[in-house]
Amino acid sequence: MTKERLYIYDTTLRDGQQTQGVQFSTSEKQQIAGALDTLGVDYIEGGWPGANPTDSEFFEDRPSTKATFTAFGMTKRAGMSAENDDVLAAVLNADTPAVCLVGKTHDFHVETALGITLAENTENIEKSIVHLKKQGREPLFDAEHFFDGFKANPAYAIETVKAAYEAGARWVVLCDTNGGALPSEVYDAVKAVIKAGIPGDHVGIHTHNDTEQAVANSLAAVDAGARHIQGTLNGLGERCGNANLTTLIPMLLLKEPYASQFEIGVTKDALQGLTRTSRMLDDILNRVPSKQAAFVGASAFAHKAGLHASAILKDPTTYEHVPPETVGNARIIPMSNQAGQSNLRRRLAEAGIEVEKGHPALGAMLEKIKEKEALGYSFDTAQASFELLARRELGLLPDFFEVKRYRVSVERRKNKYNKMVSLSEAVVVIKVGDEKHLSVSESMDESGADRGPVNALSKALAKDLGPYQDVIDDMRLVDFKVRITQGGTEAVTRVIIDSIDSQGQQWSTVGVSANIVDASFEALVDTTLWKLVNDGATPVS
Amino acid sequence: MTKERLYIYDTTLRDGQQTQGVQFSTSEKQQIAGALDTLGVDYIEGGWPGANPTDSEFFEDRPSTKATFTAFGMTKRAGMSAENDDVLAAVLNADTPAVCLVGKTHDFHVETALGITLAENTENIEKSIVHLKKQGREPLFDAEHFFDGFKANPAYAIETVKAAYEAGARWVVLCDTNGGALPSEVYDAVKAVIKAGIPGDHVGIHTHNDTEQAVANSLAAVDAGARHIQGTLNGLGERCGNANLTTLIPMLLLKEPYASQFEIGVTKDALQGLTRTSRMLDDILNRVPSKQAAFVGASAFAHKAGLHASAILKDPTTYEHVPPETVGNARIIPMSNQAGQSNLRRRLAEAGIEVEKGHPALGAMLEKIKEKEALGYSFDTAQASFELLARRELGLLPDFFEVKRYRVSVERRKNKYNKMVSLSEAVVVIKVGDEKHLSVSESMDESGADRGPVNALSKALAKDLGPYQDVIDDMRLVDFKVRITQGGTEAVTRVIIDSIDSQGQQWSTVGVSANIVDASFEALVDTTLWKLVNDGATPVS
Repeated sequence: MTKERLYIYDTTLRDGQQTQGVQFSTSEKQQIAGALDTLGVDYIEGGWPGANPTDSEFFEDRPSTKATFTAFGMTKRAGMSAENDDVLAAVLNADTPAVCLVGKTHDFHVETALGITLAENTENIEKSIVHLKKQGREPLFDAEHFFDGFKANPAYAIETVKAAYEAGARWVVLCDTNGGALPSEVYDAVKAVIKAGIPGDHVGIHTHNDTEQAVANSLAAVDAGARHIQGTLNGLGERCGNANLTTLIPMLLLKEPYASQFEIGVTKDALQGLTRTSRMLDDILNRVPSKQAAFVGASAFAHKAGLHASAILKDPTTYEHVPPETVGNARIIPMSNQAGQSNLRRRLAEAGIEVEKGHPALGAMLEKIKEKEALGYSFDTAQASFELLARRELGLLPDFFEVKRYRVSVERRKNKYNKMVSLSEAVVVIKVGDEKHLSVSESMDESGADRGPVNALSKALAKDLGPYQDVIDDMRLVDFKVRITQGGTEAVTRVIIDSIDSQGQQWSTVGVSANIVDASFEALVDTTLWKLVNDGATPVS
Repeated sequence: MTKERLYIYDTTLRDGQQTQGVQFSTSEKQQIAGALDTLGVDYIEGGWPGANPTDSEFFEDRPSTKATFTAFGMTKRAGMSAENDDVLAAVLNADTPAVCLVGKTHDFHVETALGITLAENTENIEKSIVHLKKQGREPLFDAEHFFDGFKANPAYAIETVKAAYEAGARWVVLCDTNGGALPSEVYDAVKAVIKAGIPGDHVGIHTHNDTEQAVANSLAAVDAGARHIQGTLNGLGERCGNANLTTLIPMLLLKEPYASQFEIGVTKDALQGLTRTSRMLDDILNRVPSKQAAFVGASAFAHKAGLHASAILKDPTTYEHVPPETVGNARIIPMSNQAGQSNLRRRLAEAGIEVEKGHPALGAMLEKIKEKEALGYSFDTAQASFELLARRELGLLPDFFEVKRYRVSVERRKNKYNKMVSLSEAVVVIKVGDEKHLSVSESMDESGADRGPVNALSKALAKDLGPYQDVIDDMRLVDFKVRITQGGTEAVTRVIIDSIDSQGQQWSTVGVSANIVDASFEALVDTTLWKLVNDGATPVS
């Protein structure tokens, strides 16, 4: 059976940027566009040229992509020709192969928001699409508020999209702009559009997640015949977000009836990069990845219930709707039960530590992990601290150095210009073999700003490690994350530290304490130890 | 037209607890049950008595609720009678009016996971339900893997649920245990169950969010005739979570066709507490509330796009599918545009600060807020710091005291028992009028544990405020949250502090700095100032 082609249109860089708190830099846009292209989406919408400096800059230096690079804009305004509309001209100046223009389809919006007649609006749509076509661009029409419009005045809503289609729009994209439509409504409206004469392979869908049904609505449109889906990575977007491509893409590739019916630009090989791509976007946004995210969340294949965990051992399909590796994710079975030991051995092997089945240290290790996790440690994220713990239990961690004591102080007072300034200072005392090393550092960066006690401690610890100094010199702290576990006055602080070195190694460690400085110091020591182990430093003692 | 009754069954305390990282204490379970009862759900499932100590303890001291309190368990095992099954006995011993038992309906699971015959399994279901009935309990049957079972062997899946219904189950709850079913599959299977002779008002639905369609699947079941929906607050649950009641409840109450067709236990008044209830649960779990959550997320009614924000001013229905106040949420329009000023005046009025329209301080205030938010401050959560900022701009904040300087140190070394211990010490110097006050405190709590530098600072600051001491004596820090804004080495720390006093006032303040101690101190000072302002302390100076 020949598969039908279904097109994926990504709007992370435009609609995704409408997320509260999100503002991509030009280089971040480049990075995301690259990842989308590797994944294999068909269209990448880069932004609205002319709407803001970042978008304009990005289009000036846009990446070359296999995907059809698309600029977003709006249909020409009333009272001027498409040729003379400067907003539209700015969009065309970006010189992209495809252009997607938003226009009104809901009579209420035409009359209330624009204040023009219905006929004028239809003409604006038609003239704008004709203009794009004349300029040799692939024209897309973004039918704003289509589903609300179709409910209020179906004849007019259909009139607008037909105008766009007949003027030459490659795709007429039906938008649930306010996110309130239900799947059955979407299904019926798409059917009506196709019945009115726009073939399904010219109909697209663009939904929002205000009722948690953006994915269901997108699929309902496909069920009704639409062949183009718009969405964003991780469901970024205005208010509750857009349809989540990170969910839709595996749905279309892995699940029936879609997998047999359609061909999309994303291959099964590329799909294995999905989890990584999703996490990369969160990294760029400095967001904590949603653990519960469908397909790519860290918990998406975690089996906590005892009954589930034991059945999974017999056959993973008992509690999994797709295999985790298909999307580059992994199964998690709690360490605390029987499944734990084989799971643990797998994780150790990944870290290059082979332990034979049934080794007595495995049980002790699981106990230790359980105990520490109860205190607030999290070894899922801090793989390096996990490895150190394992090595310690297996007797594979040399005594590189001993921390004798440290002291850190923060002082805030007026400087000589009568301005309040603060300064942190740290003293760290370690012993390597028989030799004591005292180091002191302060927290000022090049600009003279105080970067706080953890910065001072980190510098003091790395200042003089005696014979190991060469090994740790290329190590650099790149991120520092603090989470309070347990609320209230009993609050305990978990600190995760990410480090890199000149060989491109990246590792994460964890520290936990009621004292935030202590928690940080613990993570800093682990960071250093991991680097010594991994670079094969020779212990002095 | 008479509305049909639709029942809401909450399983936050049982299935919700299967969320990775979630473990409720008994008192937290009490608190959540109370909130659910206030909201008006019909059933509250408390857990599995006998499965773990917390669940057993909770049932021993269970709250009295209007909702039908329900215990969860599993159908009797093969080879023993319902009367002699000790696991089932533990569930019945909890003495709840209703009991929900999970059982197999998928032939593959019966044979693979249980290793018994199909007939034995059906008999286990039947006998268990009869036993519940005999004990005077309302029996519910949780049909595990029903939709997968129905796909594989429809006759057997139907046989199991019919056995439960005919044995007297009040509800037969069809479960999409693995979360992989599509809305159309759910719709067809529910129709088939009803056609097989189980009336819709005895059919329930229980879905999971593995394809982001738990809400759509629940509504598809209702469309097909089911009249009982199971879910959890905030969509907690194993893997990607359960159907989110925080979304489903407003859908059923506010949106057509559901609002006209059904009556549920939740009233429109109670619905206004939904956002608060959702945030309370996140507070208990010390989770960051999802901003993008449907209906209750902080961004759910945030209008960032310029075109949207200006249309919203003309008529909110232009870009909102329901009014935010119906669910106790609020519209957010970026402060930086024209809408900002009226928005700001509304927030000030809520804090008891009336400012006339067009007051010149409003513009300055917006600028200040924008500037500080760019640095990492967040005034949405820290209402008290927002009020102080506004008062400062309006000249309404007296000079209660001046911080001259502080110093805090953390030291870690071996104690006399050769054990590593840490201790923090803080000195704070303030000036009240012409008088200098020096205070010193250390960070030890009653148990002798070090609670870190912020604890020491907080105690030193509150130790001697001279003439204001009486006013601040009943103030207590209850939570402390740290977030790193901006990643990497340029990391900036945002600290939010929540405080309460003996009058039950609760307020939140914010501090931002690259130095975490500095950020905390700033929030501590705001905490103290807000209390002085709010209790009408008379400034000395």
